[in-house]
Amino acid sequence: MPSQEQLNDWFNKKKKRKQSLSAKLLFPALKNGNRLALSSAITLVESSTIQDRREADKLIKNCLTLKKKSWRIGITGVPGVGKSSFIEAFGKIILEKGLKLAVLAIDPSSSYSGGSILGDKTRMSWLAQQENVFIRPTATGNNLGGVASNTREAILICEAAGFDIIFVETVGVGQSETVVHSMVDFFLLLMLSGAGDELQGIKRGIMEMADVILITKADGDNLQNSKNARSQYANALHLFPPKKSEWISKALISSSVSGDGLTELWNTIQSYFNKISVNGWLEENRRNQEISLFKENLSHLITQDFFGNERWKMKFNELEIKVAKGKISAFLAANQLFIEYLEANRT
Amino acid sequence: MPSQEQLNDWFNKKKKRKQSLSAKLLFPALKNGNRLALSSAITLVESSTIQDRREADKLIKNCLTLKKKSWRIGITGVPGVGKSSFIEAFGKIILEKGLKLAVLAIDPSSSYSGGSILGDKTRMSWLAQQENVFIRPTATGNNLGGVASNTREAILICEAAGFDIIFVETVGVGQSETVVHSMVDFFLLLMLSGAGDELQGIKRGIMEMADVILITKADGDNLQNSKNARSQYANALHLFPPKKSEWISKALISSSVSGDGLTELWNTIQSYFNKISVNGWLEENRRNQEISLFKENLSHLITQDFFGNERWKMKFNELEIKVAKGKISAFLAANQLFIEYLEANRT
Repeated sequence: MPSQEQLNDWFNKKKKRKQSLSAKLLFPALKNGNRLALSSAITLVESSTIQDRREADKLIKNCLTLKKKSWRIGITGVPGVGKSSFIEAFGKIILEKGLKLAVLAIDPSSSYSGGSILGDKTRMSWLAQQENVFIRPTATGNNLGGVASNTREAILICEAAGFDIIFVETVGVGQSETVVHSMVDFFLLLMLSGAGDELQGIKRGIMEMADVILITKADGDNLQNSKNARSQYANALHLFPPKKSEWISKALISSSVSGDGLTELWNTIQSYFNKISVNGWLEENRRNQEISLFKENLSHLITQDFFGNERWKMKFNELEIKVAKGKISAFLAANQLFIEYLEANRT
Repeated sequence: MPSQEQLNDWFNKKKKRKQSLSAKLLFPALKNGNRLALSSAITLVESSTIQDRREADKLIKNCLTLKKKSWRIGITGVPGVGKSSFIEAFGKIILEKGLKLAVLAIDPSSSYSGGSILGDKTRMSWLAQQENVFIRPTATGNNLGGVASNTREAILICEAAGFDIIFVETVGVGQSETVVHSMVDFFLLLMLSGAGDELQGIKRGIMEMADVILITKADGDNLQNSKNARSQYANALHLFPPKKSEWISKALISSSVSGDGLTELWNTIQSYFNKISVNGWLEENRRNQEISLFKENLSHLITQDFFGNERWKMKFNELEIKVAKGKISAFLAANQLFIEYLEANRT
């Protein structure tokens, strides 16, 4: 086992020469909690070169053998809800319990840049400096499917590195919440009091995913409003059909300034994980998530093979216009194009 | 143009000899509102023989040229909510306005049989005897995708035959609500008062689709409960994010016994269609529905080509077990199988 200093040296040399990292080297260092190994491992799984992908696959296989378990917590909310302040304040409570926290942020609007990493560390400046914290953004560009895979692998890597709690954070405005929901055990929706304009950013269907709806900024003049909002949400949640996890979703309030409500949130999350560990949902849900992801990835690759092809894309676009104009039925258009595709493939 | 008697004779002969019907013969009779032509046309689009499919395609093309518009209304609710009684009672109001009503029922649990048709006519015995009413069940067996196409085509056929209002009815327990939602303009969710056990059948996400939640059986001892439920649902709906249609979903109560609330429901549906005709959502939504369906159908056909193949299905199942056991990541499993598939196809 090389020393931390030796490892750091080695990594830096590799980096300078833009050489690939090997799973063989990364894995033991990762298991040891080496931070450079951790971030290099995530960079590796994000890379799209064939050589890197091969090493990434090996690394993930190794991580899977460890069977380490963290609590995977999805966090979403519209911009302005105070997500960064919340994560800082709530992160502090987690650190006080002696736990290690990783924050993986998915930002569907930005593309990858050094700036976005810096941005994340600036907006959670206290947390970013703590030893037991690891913060890492994933920019999605236009490929949310790719991010789903990358972030899932990043979760496994963080688990291998010994992180106990993993936040997967996203902005509640697009498709990314569903992606996040498909890779976490617990889903937290941050909301502002006042069911007015602020709500418009939240996509329909997100509320029903939430295990806890947390009304943020419940302090000062806003406290009474927040309490009112909490009971409104509590009533609404009560009307939703029960979840397969048998968990009854809760509405809570918190203040990232005073810290009020954060311990209650932590206790609620603990009861949640207690419940789903006992009733088997934790395991079952993860199994289901993996199988769905396998099926989705495969279907995506197969249809991508079609839609990624210039010829078929052109034909698809032509027919799409006819379908939109009501000149041909969707069914007939699909059949027609599929038969053409089959004939082209089979000859 | 042949007389109705001549047409009936001709259809019956064809039927006895199990001959295919031609679009050329069916279409003018259908446009004329001939009922035998109507049910034969729907049988034709449900048929899976190549000859029938070819005629069905011609027929649908003809129907599309008519550009007739009905109000397409999806209706769902768990068993026991009183769906049949509601449709009878509400149907009566629609007939009193001088409108023609078609009821297309999707039952995901039953498979196709004469008995299921009889069942539908029995449970809506008064409605089934009315001249301006057409009732038709579609059994799905295991293929909801197929039903989606069949029912969509049945809608077009009913429109060609001059029906003004089309109900697409389904049981609120499975995937079929989403399918129904994807082919209607307005989505009605029937609910019982008492947010207890009865709710368990409704799938999560269905409530957010509803344009109106109607509490049924609001009569006698149940009236006060129903009123309470209405205000609870009204509050909950208020918390949901706004719909793209700009419609604010409403909670209403009704009694199929006394008829109370049914006129209010009709007026609400009228305001809905007024609104979406003016703001353009009616057209936009239908266009979006068609394009999504085209894409979905095509993706379905392409992946079906893969998953319908014994060899790949077997390999998929093998890997699925490994994925579920955490022996291989979903990402890696998908890639591995896809590469095998590509190699097999390209050689």
